[in-house]
Amino acid sequence: MESAIPPHLQCPRSRPRRVPDDYVPPYPSFVARHPASVQRVVMAYFGVQSPTARAPAADAALAEMQRRFGAEAGPRHWDRARYTDEAGHDNVFCAAYWDDPASFDAWFAAHGRDWTRTTRDGVGTFAEIVRPDVRRYETLFSSPDRCEGIATLASHMSDVVMEHAYWGGARDRIPASQTDAMEPAGELRVERDGARVRVVGHDALCLIRSGQDWSDTDGDELRMYRHDVEPVLREGMEFLRDRGREVGCFANRYVTVEDDAGRALPKSYGMSWWTSLAKLERWAESHPTHVAIFGAAMRYLSTLGPAARLRLYHEVTVAQADEQFFEYLNCHPRTGMLRALAP
Amino acid sequence: MESAIPPHLQCPRSRPRRVPDDYVPPYPSFVARHPASVQRVVMAYFGVQSPTARAPAADAALAEMQRRFGAEAGPRHWDRARYTDEAGHDNVFCAAYWDDPASFDAWFAAHGRDWTRTTRDGVGTFAEIVRPDVRRYETLFSSPDRCEGIATLASHMSDVVMEHAYWGGARDRIPASQTDAMEPAGELRVERDGARVRVVGHDALCLIRSGQDWSDTDGDELRMYRHDVEPVLREGMEFLRDRGREVGCFANRYVTVEDDAGRALPKSYGMSWWTSLAKLERWAESHPTHVAIFGAAMRYLSTLGPAARLRLYHEVTVAQADEQFFEYLNCHPRTGMLRALAP
Repeated sequence: MESAIPPHLQCPRSRPRRVPDDYVPPYPSFVARHPASVQRVVMAYFGVQSPTARAPAADAALAEMQRRFGAEAGPRHWDRARYTDEAGHDNVFCAAYWDDPASFDAWFAAHGRDWTRTTRDGVGTFAEIVRPDVRRYETLFSSPDRCEGIATLASHMSDVVMEHAYWGGARDRIPASQTDAMEPAGELRVERDGARVRVVGHDALCLIRSGQDWSDTDGDELRMYRHDVEPVLREGMEFLRDRGREVGCFANRYVTVEDDAGRALPKSYGMSWWTSLAKLERWAESHPTHVAIFGAAMRYLSTLGPAARLRLYHEVTVAQADEQFFEYLNCHPRTGMLRALAP
Repeated sequence: MESAIPPHLQCPRSRPRRVPDDYVPPYPSFVARHPASVQRVVMAYFGVQSPTARAPAADAALAEMQRRFGAEAGPRHWDRARYTDEAGHDNVFCAAYWDDPASFDAWFAAHGRDWTRTTRDGVGTFAEIVRPDVRRYETLFSSPDRCEGIATLASHMSDVVMEHAYWGGARDRIPASQTDAMEPAGELRVERDGARVRVVGHDALCLIRSGQDWSDTDGDELRMYRHDVEPVLREGMEFLRDRGREVGCFANRYVTVEDDAGRALPKSYGMSWWTSLAKLERWAESHPTHVAIFGAAMRYLSTLGPAARLRLYHEVTVAQADEQFFEYLNCHPRTGMLRALAP
């Protein structure tokens, strides 16, 4: 067992971990490890929005972006997902990952910047990007042999880590938590340029991508996931989508992962923006909708034990204002971080 | 809203609270306030154990103790409770409270000490006593107008407090947590003198009394408590009673409160001894049995909202070795802290 915080990011603590040194988690989990040379990563969501489902213009726009990912200095990994938002619009986006900000900057200037600068008939586009210092995010995986999200750029997975299976574990896995409360500071503001809207967030804005992969499940396990877990998860995700502002969530997308051509895969994730890690913690540990999700997951996992083949993972980032980029072109006013401006 | 830690017990923190300064709990709770002159309290459980239910010898012994409570320097408050333990024995005990250790010492020398020194035909007796510094325990009440346990000695109830409705709230309400991780130290040991067994605990042993009072409920609310909440609570309590050692719980008693004459009242509580506050925290926040209790309570309270008339309270103490006294006479070897010695 090892700390989720790799040795080169450990420092003298002014803020203690929530669990004592002899804590042993009741089941194993793993975190992604980057080479020590990686100091900052980029997580970029490029989306297209259409009032009609599966609009050819939306798919064409995203297919173009996917081609651009293949250009020099493109992302080392990307995936694609789709969901229907609170306004009934179809949203499809790619999440793309870099572990070299200079490469991202070069690629973005040449191939990414105009995503939200070029008007497309009948569809809106958005870019939501964070570029956190490696001390400001964490990952967690239920098994070490299949990566998702930023972890696809890792050099390897950790051994079993100590800081998990308790509330506050995500905070304790983020290296910055050793010395930083990661509380929000500054004001969120908006800059408009015609149809394009840019949101400048405040410090310590929080992003979570939290996913499930049921591709290896079948029979009773798959039925149990579909009947006992997924509906409860969906209800919680819909609460955050529709009423998230009550609990500090700017926006939530509960998405189905797709292949490059837009065919659904047996994977989903929730992706949401929060006022702070503290607000995310409070929802997760005490809101009835997440308590229900947690309870359903507990029953599922304790029924199946080590035989469970459902894979769970997440990544949580706490980004400073200068690590964020939000831009929206012809999107409806409840899209993503635009929700922060809605009454 | 105010801090659960009263001003005279606040000190510069070396350990931060788990929630940010702008945290606002989603519903109100209250804590008991003592006069600042109170520096230490005594919580004393005097029990009698019998292999047969409602044994006259047990009731007679306890009635005698109740008379002794009326002597000079006796407890300012006491109550009585009963449960059937894991060995099928009937246990009935009084919990008695002092807020002046000198009074307790005087009373105990004259009237309490021989409780576990005098053999009684057919029954065993036990005394489990902690005398914590006021910086080493906390209370919490769902409504401010009926006290239980140590809070019956309070001068008043607080305003709505900040540090509750999140995991780790109990720790944050204990004044010592401002500077102390409250981790166990030292070894638990046993001293035998014939049939009498004394257990000397380690530092930072943890006691919780966590109760519910349904005397004001009726109709649908009472049915909901009985059918949806109580069975789940009972299952968790039985897990701790039978398998608590797996999670750091030495002993758990899920008791029905009685009047002075042994008639059941519409109140119950769980009273348990733990290796550490950290172990109690881990069970509460992540063990399936308590996650189920928490989920049932959440559904109950969110269905009823402010109309709920069920009253909930608890008190959590973290006692140093020199603040503890455990003595057992003719009790079976799985009684209370004797469990710590069982294989």
